[in-house]
Amino acid sequence: MTLDDYRLSAEPAYHPCGQEIAHYRAAYAARLPVMLKGPTGCGKTRFVEHMAWALERPLITVSCHEDMTASDLVGRYLLGPEGTHWQDGPLTLAVRHGAICYLDEIVEARQDTTVIIHALTDNRRILPLEKKGELVQAHPDFQLVISYNPGYQSVLKDLKESTKQRFCAMDFDYPDPGIEAAIVASQAGISEGTARQLVQIAGKSRNLRGQGLDEGASTRMLIHAGRLMEAGLDLRQACQLALITPITDDADMRQALAAAVDACA
Amino acid sequence: MTLDDYRLSAEPAYHPCGQEIAHYRAAYAARLPVMLKGPTGCGKTRFVEHMAWALERPLITVSCHEDMTASDLVGRYLLGPEGTHWQDGPLTLAVRHGAICYLDEIVEARQDTTVIIHALTDNRRILPLEKKGELVQAHPDFQLVISYNPGYQSVLKDLKESTKQRFCAMDFDYPDPGIEAAIVASQAGISEGTARQLVQIAGKSRNLRGQGLDEGASTRMLIHAGRLMEAGLDLRQACQLALITPITDDADMRQALAAAVDACA
Amino acid sequence: MTLDDYRLSAEPAYHPCGQEIAHYRAAYAARLPVMLKGPTGCGKTRFVEHMAWALERPLITVSCHEDMTASDLVGRYLLGPEGTHWQDGPLTLAVRHGAICYLDEIVEARQDTTVIIHALTDNRRILPLEKKGELVQAHPDFQLVISYNPGYQSVLKDLKESTKQRFCAMDFDYPDPGIEAAIVASQAGISEGTARQLVQIAGKSRNLRGQGLDEGASTRMLIHAGRLMEAGLDLRQACQLALITPITDDADMRQALAAAVDACA
Amino acid sequence: MTLDDYRLSAEPAYHPCGQEIAHYRAAYAARLPVMLKGPTGCGKTRFVEHMAWALERPLITVSCHEDMTASDLVGRYLLGPEGTHWQDGPLTLAVRHGAICYLDEIVEARQDTTVIIHALTDNRRILPLEKKGELVQAHPDFQLVISYNPGYQSVLKDLKESTKQRFCAMDFDYPDPGIEAAIVASQAGISEGTARQLVQIAGKSRNLRGQGLDEGASTRMLIHAGRLMEAGLDLRQACQLALITPITDDADMRQALAAAVDACA
Amino acid sequence: MTLDDYRLSAEPAYHPCGQEIAHYRAAYAARLPVMLKGPTGCGKTRFVEHMAWALERPLITVSCHEDMTASDLVGRYLLGPEGTHWQDGPLTLAVRHGAICYLDEIVEARQDTTVIIHALTDNRRILPLEKKGELVQAHPDFQLVISYNPGYQSVLKDLKESTKQRFCAMDFDYPDPGIEAAIVASQAGISEGTARQLVQIAGKSRNLRGQGLDEGASTRMLIHAGRLMEAGLDLRQACQLALITPITDDADMRQALAAAVDACA
Amino acid sequence: MTLDDYRLSAEPAYHPCGQEIAHYRAAYAARLPVMLKGPTGCGKTRFVEHMAWALERPLITVSCHEDMTASDLVGRYLLGPEGTHWQDGPLTLAVRHGAICYLDEIVEARQDTTVIIHALTDNRRILPLEKKGELVQAHPDFQLVISYNPGYQSVLKDLKESTKQRFCAMDFDYPDPGIEAAIVASQAGISEGTARQLVQIAGKSRNLRGQGLDEGASTRMLIHAGRLMEAGLDLRQACQLALITPITDDADMRQALAAAVDACA
Repeated sequence: MTLDDYRLSAEPAYHPCGQEIAHYRAAYAARLPVMLKGPTGCGKTRFVEHMAWALERPLITVSCHEDMTASDLVGRYLLGPEGTHWQDGPLTLAVRHGAICYLDEIVEARQDTTVIIHALTDNRRILPLEKKGELVQAHPDFQLVISYNPGYQSVLKDLKESTKQRFCAMDFDYPDPGIEAAIVASQAGISEGTARQLVQIAGKSRNLRGQGLDEGASTRMLIHAGRLMEAGLDLRQACQLALITPITDDADMRQALAAAVDACA
Repeated sequence: MTLDDYRLSAEPAYHPCGQEIAHYRAAYAARLPVMLKGPTGCGKTRFVEHMAWALERPLITVSCHEDMTASDLVGRYLLGPEGTHWQDGPLTLAVRHGAICYLDEIVEARQDTTVIIHALTDNRRILPLEKKGELVQAHPDFQLVISYNPGYQSVLKDLKESTKQRFCAMDFDYPDPGIEAAIVASQAGISEGTARQLVQIAGKSRNLRGQGLDEGASTRMLIHAGRLMEAGLDLRQACQLALITPITDDADMRQALAAAVDACA
Repeated sequence: MTLDDYRLSAEPAYHPCGQEIAHYRAAYAARLPVMLKGPTGCGKTRFVEHMAWALERPLITVSCHEDMTASDLVGRYLLGPEGTHWQDGPLTLAVRHGAICYLDEIVEARQDTTVIIHALTDNRRILPLEKKGELVQAHPDFQLVISYNPGYQSVLKDLKESTKQRFCAMDFDYPDPGIEAAIVASQAGISEGTARQLVQIAGKSRNLRGQGLDEGASTRMLIHAGRLMEAGLDLRQACQLALITPITDDADMRQALAAAVDACA
Repeated sequence: MTLDDYRLSAEPAYHPCGQEIAHYRAAYAARLPVMLKGPTGCGKTRFVEHMAWALERPLITVSCHEDMTASDLVGRYLLGPEGTHWQDGPLTLAVRHGAICYLDEIVEARQDTTVIIHALTDNRRILPLEKKGELVQAHPDFQLVISYNPGYQSVLKDLKESTKQRFCAMDFDYPDPGIEAAIVASQAGISEGTARQLVQIAGKSRNLRGQGLDEGASTRMLIHAGRLMEAGLDLRQACQLALITPITDDADMRQALAAAVDACA
Repeated sequence: MTLDDYRLSAEPAYHPCGQEIAHYRAAYAARLPVMLKGPTGCGKTRFVEHMAWALERPLITVSCHEDMTASDLVGRYLLGPEGTHWQDGPLTLAVRHGAICYLDEIVEARQDTTVIIHALTDNRRILPLEKKGELVQAHPDFQLVISYNPGYQSVLKDLKESTKQRFCAMDFDYPDPGIEAAIVASQAGISEGTARQLVQIAGKSRNLRGQGLDEGASTRMLIHAGRLMEAGLDLRQACQLALITPITDDADMRQALAAAVDACA
Repeated sequence: MTLDDYRLSAEPAYHPCGQEIAHYRAAYAARLPVMLKGPTGCGKTRFVEHMAWALERPLITVSCHEDMTASDLVGRYLLGPEGTHWQDGPLTLAVRHGAICYLDEIVEARQDTTVIIHALTDNRRILPLEKKGELVQAHPDFQLVISYNPGYQSVLKDLKESTKQRFCAMDFDYPDPGIEAAIVASQAGISEGTARQLVQIAGKSRNLRGQGLDEGASTRMLIHAGRLMEAGLDLRQACQLALITPITDDADMRQALAAAVDACA
């Protein structure tokens, strides 16, 4: 696998919501690591894809999880006919060849994965491959990006202060209604009018956050609903499958959400 | 093992209870991942088998458990005479060759297994095999289905919001009495009359749910009872073995269930 | 090792206590999985041995424990001169070749071992060997039997509802005095009169259950006492060694049990 | 290593305290497994050595601990120039060739080690080597012996009832003063008079048990003190090193013990 | 990789704050191990780099984390075409060839890593490679340095007294405003005036420590902000990205920090 | 590595504080295992080195830690070009060839390491290498020594009674002021007068134990301070680095310790 597999072949659609593109460009110019903060499904991954395309850099994305170890990021020895040989992990690949490496929900990973990035995020910009006995000096184009959902973190599972302080941070949230409707319409292939209906429903659902609902409907879910409508379901059916049933089993909450759909239908 | 082992050779009997077939077809048409919600033994697995047959897709089913790791799904290196070689896991097999992959009770699995599906369930539709250094682009026919039993989940063990939001969800429950009797009769090879007796007993048992009984008798248990009757036991014996003794050791509860059997005999 | 090692060479003595033989025959005829419930040492293992002999099936018994993994049941790769080769575990051996597989105290095992049997215990009757990439269709003669001691289970360690519902269940308890004396006499090689004395003592010991004693003397312990008498000890010595000292260190309880022995001597 | 390494070359000195030799002989004649109960250092290991010598059987002793696994007892595959080969563990060695196997403090071991002995301790007398795929039928001379210190067991760490019930049990305690003095004199090579002084001190120390002292001085510790006197220390010095400093750091308790030594000097 | 990779090629800029250079030189002259205490991002790593350059020693830095094992420090066997060969870990490399080894945040590591350094930090100055069966006598130039952030340690995770007592310790804190402004100006490439503004903001942020903020802005963060300004952002934008968003999600705290920025702008 | 690497080449300086040399000689003459009790840094390791030199035995020291396993002590199989071969661990090396084996802070190790020494510390004096299938009879010169710091032990982590009772025990504490000053002077290469000042300061620091200080300054720390003075620091600087900063971060306590230094300067 070469790094070219990680180049984006087409421009990822992205609708800016503020100055985030200029801010990111400055951070990349200074090669500072960036942390994207915001709720799930609001477009953080899409934004990184867009910036990687705009900056003409390959993008290596890693979804972090609590069983992920440093070796999963950095690489490991594999046993072949000539004995063991080293295989670079996704982070090492990015560091060595100058990609943007995006660690999605890094706080889910074990501590060794967060510490491994320390020497990469200060002025040294090196990645020590301790098991291989190699010090990789980061490629000048390399940048590290992580995502972080503030609503999720518990006291037990949070980034260490000494990690947070190494990043520039940018806030993300769901786009304004007009922008969100444009996104949904273009990505689901439905009319702007229908998309606006879905965004209206999402607004009501997001208002219920904290009142029995952990999170409201995300932009991604609106696109799902739109695509189900494209596949022949009506608005009520599509919202039931894509917006209501996935996020709650509480009968009252389901009724409230269904009423919100009815009101916009 | 080729994917053909996973093709269903005969139409799995399925009695629809509502619009679930149309809804599933729409989700499959949009290649959206689907979550089936409902109690154990109500027919979720049977429904997926039916849809795989109807859509002419191979079906790869994986029963998840808390010791299951991402490698069990994705694949691993095995040591052979030529050194290590990679073996695709069941999920990779489905992704690569276009099967429907059904992860039964995914919430039981460790977190790394749920995160592995993130890049498969958004617009990227890719499966990164990090240990192999390969990005598998999903086959156009591939679809992911998971099951989820809302009654079981505890605070400690639930799907993350960022996972739930990636799925269209459909509710399942025990079928209406008439349909359930038809299912039991056809699958156990007993008369509709006897099947109706069993369904009546199940109804009483389900009413005791929450009053000392974790779950009532499932459709599967009724089929068991029917098959024991086919093998020569009478109604009382069959219900004792298949409906009562398995689910409770409480003397009062057993008596209540036995009385329910007597009332229907 | 061939499956013939698992065939019983002689009829295991078994004294029926009710309709358990007919019930088991019906479950086997329908190839339904069976759960045997009852206290330790009351004859569950002996019953399965008897049924395997009566049905002319090999019997593979596995004592489950909390460090047992799915691989211990299903099989694993071993490294040989030609690289790795697969070795079937005891469950796979039974599934492939049509034995009865008896998982003793399955609730002790880790969850992955209980989930592995799900696809074996519904209408699919398949065993997926995920590490090998093979789907084993169960031999028509294969049957799964598990034991379960209701008195032992804690909230933390119990079978999942979705597992319980897959089994027909049969209750076991210590046999009636007359039958138990016959069992003890024949298996320890002592007179029926002495055996009756031992059964009388056991009765008193079982009455103390819950009053400082976790369990009373089991049939197995009576056979032990009988065999010690055969080897030359008197009733008091034999009961001290086989019935009293093993199960309690409490001085009062020991005195109560010794008094029970004296009363029957 | 052959089994002959495990034969005792000389008669281990043993001073009987009651009928324990006859009781053990009866259990061995019936090939029943035996559990030795009693405090640490009171002579349980010595007794098993004596019986193995008297019965002309090799003795394989295993000190159990909480990191011990079933493989440590049963055996494992090792990698050699011809690929893997199986090596019997100490229990398998004893089972195969007819030794007495003594599992010291078995309750310390993990559960898998206690369950592994189940099939060895009922009428089957088999040891399933699951990883090897072999059923070892026990040699007719094989016997299993375990030790168990009732004072140590906690609720969390105790033998399961279903394990306890498989054993004949015998109680052990420190010997009567006369016998203990003879043991100490002969094993430490000191005069009977000095040995009686040490036994007197031990008596006082054992009376402090539960009053700030977990255990009193064991017979083994008296032998230690005697051997230090043989090496030139006086009674007070020897008792300080061997009886007092090892078992308590509490100043008052040390003073009480020193006073007990002074009173007997 | 040779040790030369670990030599610093240029003098790391360092602005002394007190007598720390003389103190460190004395400790190095006596080859005593040194512990650097202080908050994250205040310049400890930079100081060690400076001293390694001044003393003309290679510097091997290891970021410790809770999944790090002794083998990660000391080395391990790797499997090659000629069987296993030993590979020195970073600590062994330093010990053998006379580098300064800097273990950053050692308290994060598992206990085995802290005990491994015991024999290196007393008069023996040896590193036992237990797995290799080698005793490495430290090179005369070798020195061990660790960092320690007192504000982070919990009762559960602290250095053992017997470890602490082996080190000379030096306190570090953020530099005085004048020095800090000089550092920020020179490292971010901005004017002293702008740097002084940033230092003023940092002062206000550090005063909020303990009032809802775990730590104030570190010197490192000021350099980040400066570099963003160099890349074209204004003071407010740069502080938002580098000083505010990374360290808090609390709306009130963000407002307080933004006000602090405004006051200095 | 041969055992000669473990012979001491020069007499380790040791200043006796009482009869500890005679006591140890008696224990070694009787080949009884010895436990050294006392605070960290008071000279226990030095004492064992001295005795090994005096008795002309090699000394193998192992620093125990909570991740240490029995294999780390006993040995393990390594994979080489001829397949696996066994490598003795440090304990086996000592047992086989007659060294003194010193297990420092054994209570830190996992239980399997403490049980492994049981058969070595009773009259059998054997070390069973279960994984190798070998019984090593201890060399006549072998002796086992362990250290134990009573102030550290918690209820959860203490030696088992059955382990403690196998050892002769000797108490250690900081030496009397005159002896301690001589030790510090000779080992740091400073004048007796300066050494007496340091001992005076240590006395004050030890009085603060339990009043906010876990432990006072050890003899080792005084030697550190002395060596820093040799390297050019004055008394206050040396005490700050070596005696105060390492052991407390509490401002009041630091002031109290600094005042103690001033009073003795």
